[in-house]
Amino acid sequence: MKRLALALAAMPAFTAPALAQRTMPKPVEVDPAVVKLRDAALTSNVAWNVVEGLTTEIGPRLDGSPKEARAREWAVAKLKSLGFKNVHIETFTLPVWERGLETAEVVSPFPQPLRLTALGNSGATPPEGFTLPIVYFASFADLLAAPDGSLKGKIAYVSNSMHATQDGSSYGSQGIARFLGPDVAAKKGASAIVIRSIGTDHSRAPHAGTTNFEPGVTPIPAAAVSTADGDNIDRMVERGQPIVLHLVLTPKQVGMRESGNVVAEVPGTDPKAGIILIGGHLDSWDLGTGAIDDGAGVAITTGAAKLMLDSGPHKRTIRLVWFGDEETGGFGGAAYAKAHASERHVVASESDFGADRVWRFQTNLPEGASAIADRLAAALDPIGVLRGRDAPGEGTDVEPMLKLGVAGINLNQNGLRYFNWHHTPEDTLDKIDVEQLKQNVAAWTAMLAIVADAPEDIAPVQPKP
Amino acid sequence: MKRLALALAAMPAFTAPALAQRTMPKPVEVDPAVVKLRDAALTSNVAWNVVEGLTTEIGPRLDGSPKEARAREWAVAKLKSLGFKNVHIETFTLPVWERGLETAEVVSPFPQPLRLTALGNSGATPPEGFTLPIVYFASFADLLAAPDGSLKGKIAYVSNSMHATQDGSSYGSQGIARFLGPDVAAKKGASAIVIRSIGTDHSRAPHAGTTNFEPGVTPIPAAAVSTADGDNIDRMVERGQPIVLHLVLTPKQVGMRESGNVVAEVPGTDPKAGIILIGGHLDSWDLGTGAIDDGAGVAITTGAAKLMLDSGPHKRTIRLVWFGDEETGGFGGAAYAKAHASERHVVASESDFGADRVWRFQTNLPEGASAIADRLAAALDPIGVLRGRDAPGEGTDVEPMLKLGVAGINLNQNGLRYFNWHHTPEDTLDKIDVEQLKQNVAAWTAMLAIVADAPEDIAPVQPKP
Repeated sequence: MKRLALALAAMPAFTAPALAQRTMPKPVEVDPAVVKLRDAALTSNVAWNVVEGLTTEIGPRLDGSPKEARAREWAVAKLKSLGFKNVHIETFTLPVWERGLETAEVVSPFPQPLRLTALGNSGATPPEGFTLPIVYFASFADLLAAPDGSLKGKIAYVSNSMHATQDGSSYGSQGIARFLGPDVAAKKGASAIVIRSIGTDHSRAPHAGTTNFEPGVTPIPAAAVSTADGDNIDRMVERGQPIVLHLVLTPKQVGMRESGNVVAEVPGTDPKAGIILIGGHLDSWDLGTGAIDDGAGVAITTGAAKLMLDSGPHKRTIRLVWFGDEETGGFGGAAYAKAHASERHVVASESDFGADRVWRFQTNLPEGASAIADRLAAALDPIGVLRGRDAPGEGTDVEPMLKLGVAGINLNQNGLRYFNWHHTPEDTLDKIDVEQLKQNVAAWTAMLAIVADAPEDIAPVQPKP
Repeated sequence: MKRLALALAAMPAFTAPALAQRTMPKPVEVDPAVVKLRDAALTSNVAWNVVEGLTTEIGPRLDGSPKEARAREWAVAKLKSLGFKNVHIETFTLPVWERGLETAEVVSPFPQPLRLTALGNSGATPPEGFTLPIVYFASFADLLAAPDGSLKGKIAYVSNSMHATQDGSSYGSQGIARFLGPDVAAKKGASAIVIRSIGTDHSRAPHAGTTNFEPGVTPIPAAAVSTADGDNIDRMVERGQPIVLHLVLTPKQVGMRESGNVVAEVPGTDPKAGIILIGGHLDSWDLGTGAIDDGAGVAITTGAAKLMLDSGPHKRTIRLVWFGDEETGGFGGAAYAKAHASERHVVASESDFGADRVWRFQTNLPEGASAIADRLAAALDPIGVLRGRDAPGEGTDVEPMLKLGVAGINLNQNGLRYFNWHHTPEDTLDKIDVEQLKQNVAAWTAMLAIVADAPEDIAPVQPKP
């Protein structure tokens, strides 16, 4: 009964009095054309071919790098070969930070090497490194509570933990040691900061990622040790003796470089009906090959758009963007919004959370278009996607468009494994389960098929604050 | 019935006629003192404390290195503090190879970095490396079949695979690409060799390990890429274009250095009854912290010996050795045998296969001592250990003693996970499951308790060839 009750609860027209009368609500019917496209996605290899090709033929592609430029050329060729229209690159510039040497050892009391990686925007040590004692903080909150000046001549060490959550919400709360820790430590006078990686794994692969220093704050060397090294440091700290590290980090800011968004379209028949903006990001961190972050996202959205292309024409234009920079500041999404704000967008949605199953959708479609959400629920239920609460769109790449009042549809992926490999050398093709990838494409295809041909007008929504 | 039949079959006195008569064989009784010791092991923390301490306070400890010397001092202090007798170091010298820089990139057609590690005894490239095309071999057999001289000016690439086996037998057969590949490639004129790691994982952590060149063969640079990089190279090869690598490996032979075995004893009451030799190896590869290889082995055997120490005196002396070199040529076991061959050893057994459950025991105890094996079967069955076929002892450290005719008892661990992490940076404490570790200690304790006080004389066996 529990399963039936859940199924009934998922039907939006269903009300308590109806249950009392034991009548069944009228189910929302799914357009057979949508069903056909959705199920065709389950046997399509387009998404796999995109992510397999990108990781094999390009590999890592850090923003502003020659590899990212090569990835854009690859993307244009791939998207043209798939038959997309108006395929082109829209360039922009962004400040670029480059990784240097990165080594560390415990010097005393228990000499042994550590595995770590510099955080994006980290400052540099002298070329020969420096040898300094650590001040241990069990959490970011403890670092925040340290007296000003108390870290002078010391390396702040933050042993933050992170647990896996299906919706990835722990990244926001527990990633704070990376997002803000270096800035806080710098302001308190620390010579450097080392944190335990923001990750849910137990391994030697450190998690990279950007940090930021407030204007006027001189960046200090900032790095993340692997979770296994973090465990080891915790055990050393338990033994009660002072811990001294030797740290070498030689990254640098190299100035403004070119990046770009790769844009492709499935043109619609009714330009006035507005654009559906979808995509993922083409750039990746440099340690892995950018399979789950975010080869998967561009692959899934491209696979779905390809099914729409081949089954068209449809009413609304689908604009597929492989964003050029997400990882180091979201310059790609900002550049897109700047260039295209005047065009009428009705829905924006991105895929940037790996390739595991879509388990839920959430949307803030406006009142006049709520029937679209009902049809989405009906079309996604057979492939195991639940309807969540009403929620605005999310994602760094589409955020600037959402802030202009574009409605969002979130196809939420299961994130329980994602932060095992996020921003690490382990972000490689083998982490993608091809069956789960196909379920993603099916969910995206169903969404596009419903929204692209929806007769309802989709009005702007209250912009995200 | 299947389970009962198996249980019956495990009883050594059981015969087919007995089954026909439906009589139950007389079960072998287990000495209550053995049961008590075995079950006490399941709650002992000694083994965990040893491997936790060794990985935290020492970490990696490559043969002949200062870290290995520090590990010996640590071992002496630990074994003395546990109350063992005759704790001392027996030094020996061995030729030492030291890792240098190790980087590689695909230069064309798909430029991207690779993760790899030099194999022990690898030769060196020039400091700036070299850039050469690869000749791809799907297997070691294919490399063997390459015409002499055909690899001149090329890098041989061997895409050997390895599958997991419970008994680890695949290491012998599938590790051949590492054991012999570099020698074969050198003889065929290759400038270098790169193999896919000998491992059962899918990750970016390359597997180190020793290789050997025949006398007179000049060592060539030899390395293993991670399995994920190997998969990537396979995909590149499928695309049909020539592949060029840039390879930098700067290891070197640094001459003879000191290593040593750490020896401790639980003295027996009857010196004529012979010595039981047990242990694991203290040295480890340098990439991880030597938790499963072989911190676990010294921990397990020490944990068991400690229970014997505290419950003694027992008839036979238990000699516990933390061998000083296993990884780079077995110099530790050879030095032990050279020093102690004249002493009467009756059983030799080592633990060097991680910390997962003991699932089987095998032995070649001589005929006059076969009742010991029957009692072992009865004592080990309740903790889930099956009796295997008669088999001689095994293990690099005790091999030289086995070759002198000492009987072996193998407590075989489940090896299905072991080669995921073997010789990689991932060989860290978190890979040890404390409950499985305790089951190991229980199996070893039961074995020691039975053998140490066995009334039977244990005669020499036919030496291993």
